[in-house]
Amino acid sequence: MKIALDAMGGDHGSKVTVKAAVDAVNQYDIELILTGNHSKIIEILNQYEYPKEKIEIIHCEEVIENEDKPVAAIRKKKNSSMVVALNLVKEGKADAIISAGNTGALLAGGLLILGRIKGIDRPALAPVFPTHKGISVLIDGGANSDCKPRNFVEFGIMGSIYAEKVLGIKKPKVCLVNIGIEEGKGNDITQKAYKACKNAPFNFHGNVEARDIPTGYTDVIVCDGFTGNVILKLTEGVAASIFKILKEELTKNPVRKIGALILKSGLKGFKKRFDYTEYGGAPFLGVKGALIKAHGSSDEKAIKNAIGQAKTVIENNIVEDITYEIKKLGADILE
Amino acid sequence: MKIALDAMGGDHGSKVTVKAAVDAVNQYDIELILTGNHSKIIEILNQYEYPKEKIEIIHCEEVIENEDKPVAAIRKKKNSSMVVALNLVKEGKADAIISAGNTGALLAGGLLILGRIKGIDRPALAPVFPTHKGISVLIDGGANSDCKPRNFVEFGIMGSIYAEKVLGIKKPKVCLVNIGIEEGKGNDITQKAYKACKNAPFNFHGNVEARDIPTGYTDVIVCDGFTGNVILKLTEGVAASIFKILKEELTKNPVRKIGALILKSGLKGFKKRFDYTEYGGAPFLGVKGALIKAHGSSDEKAIKNAIGQAKTVIENNIVEDITYEIKKLGADILE
Repeated sequence: MKIALDAMGGDHGSKVTVKAAVDAVNQYDIELILTGNHSKIIEILNQYEYPKEKIEIIHCEEVIENEDKPVAAIRKKKNSSMVVALNLVKEGKADAIISAGNTGALLAGGLLILGRIKGIDRPALAPVFPTHKGISVLIDGGANSDCKPRNFVEFGIMGSIYAEKVLGIKKPKVCLVNIGIEEGKGNDITQKAYKACKNAPFNFHGNVEARDIPTGYTDVIVCDGFTGNVILKLTEGVAASIFKILKEELTKNPVRKIGALILKSGLKGFKKRFDYTEYGGAPFLGVKGALIKAHGSSDEKAIKNAIGQAKTVIENNIVEDITYEIKKLGADILE
Repeated sequence: MKIALDAMGGDHGSKVTVKAAVDAVNQYDIELILTGNHSKIIEILNQYEYPKEKIEIIHCEEVIENEDKPVAAIRKKKNSSMVVALNLVKEGKADAIISAGNTGALLAGGLLILGRIKGIDRPALAPVFPTHKGISVLIDGGANSDCKPRNFVEFGIMGSIYAEKVLGIKKPKVCLVNIGIEEGKGNDITQKAYKACKNAPFNFHGNVEARDIPTGYTDVIVCDGFTGNVILKLTEGVAASIFKILKEELTKNPVRKIGALILKSGLKGFKKRFDYTEYGGAPFLGVKGALIKAHGSSDEKAIKNAIGQAKTVIENNIVEDITYEIKKLGADILE
């Protein structure tokens, strides 16, 4: 199994991705192809011990920056680490691609270079969402701001396959994010999406209110990309704000500091349960190939976990399963 | 100053509202009119000391239940505690109305009985949002699931007036909730709303990403009612989930329990900063009258604070200010 890693992507660049690559080949039975600046990559690789035959480097002159316009960058920077890695998957030379680079460009590259699975109108980002019970998958995490009703059906199908095959949830429960649980609630598009999902081939349980998402009420959280992005970023913001206030309150005076010291391991365990680096990245489901978007601020562990995640996606034939399930659908349900 | 209180509304009914009324007349220089079941109200009132002349009771046979259909309930239950209280404001016999009852019915009642301020297309709910810096106001909190661009301008104007006059924030900063900060980001309606807000008569600072809402980045958080409702409920859900996990981690063993005991006051202070009961209720801005929706699960303190909030809304002529500001606007900005 070969996985392409955009070694130049992410806020920390090759320093983090190359170390993650080393850790990954030491831990998993995989081979990696790193795309990016050859001398930079070699310099970092030489600092570590690993099976040399398991990491290949393809030199690329260019890098897609966070400021680049997505579609233009994919079209013009043909020799960038991201475009070269995407082409490896397209040409069958790699089984998956991982990048922590420019999200818009990576999604545009997925659409333009890998292409959509036949029958899928809108591929979508499917990050995991840590809940009180364990983890759920949210789809769409931000790829499609405006959606048609049929897109919600696609999201439900792809999210169910991912939740079952990669997260190991049997017959995952699928709910639509809405502002009330009864049918007929919500804005125009959500009401239409509800109707479309009622006849869809997944375990649809109606609406979920946002307050019940963190409890783990549903395994697959279906929504348009605008709502999904708001949910992900707000959760991150609320958690960060709570941790900050907690720290302020627990270090206000010497007595409290002693209490906080006693609770150090407890507070650490608490924080770990919200640590996105545990979960790798977000797959971009619906394109012809396994594509994982890692968080821009990923550290070594996050990238290494994203590589492990790509391995699971490949081993469980997620792309083939989505292709098969969409093909089975009657054309009517996708109108 | 006279304030009408729907004594039958809320999950806890008259037990909580009547006690809150007693506390309010003991604390504030106001008079209250309680609408609801006379004998039930008297029975509770008799348990407390308060200036008798400051609380009047108007007996009502009916109650609007949470399960009732909003518009139908307002039209049919003419002698319900909620409808009678709304009519007191319409007829000038009370200066404000507060209810913790059926939200949909109360908003429908606001529109049907009080009516919209001339020039306001969509009145909106404006709850406060506790942030790291203090408090912001979010508008719309859930009254309008689908919005036109002009509605966002109305929300910005009304939110600014409320933030300045009631929350005491000078020249409040207004931002549009979006999935990126640059102009041109987001779904179709948000892009159009951005253009409309650029020329609006408030301190518009562009987009705010959901992750920055809890930091207090903006004083007025403008969004459609669907997004606003998701933001409010998700914040509630994430905070509840974090408190639950924190409690689990901090009571896992005897040593940690000792640490938690030392930190008791710190943890209490921490929780208090997220306590919605401190902030009263959410005004329904844009109708001809001061209308406060209190949370269904409000306790005595929350209702009492909502009464204090109504007093501030009246004293600062919020309804008159909104009427004046909307009138000043050119018709073109509201197209």
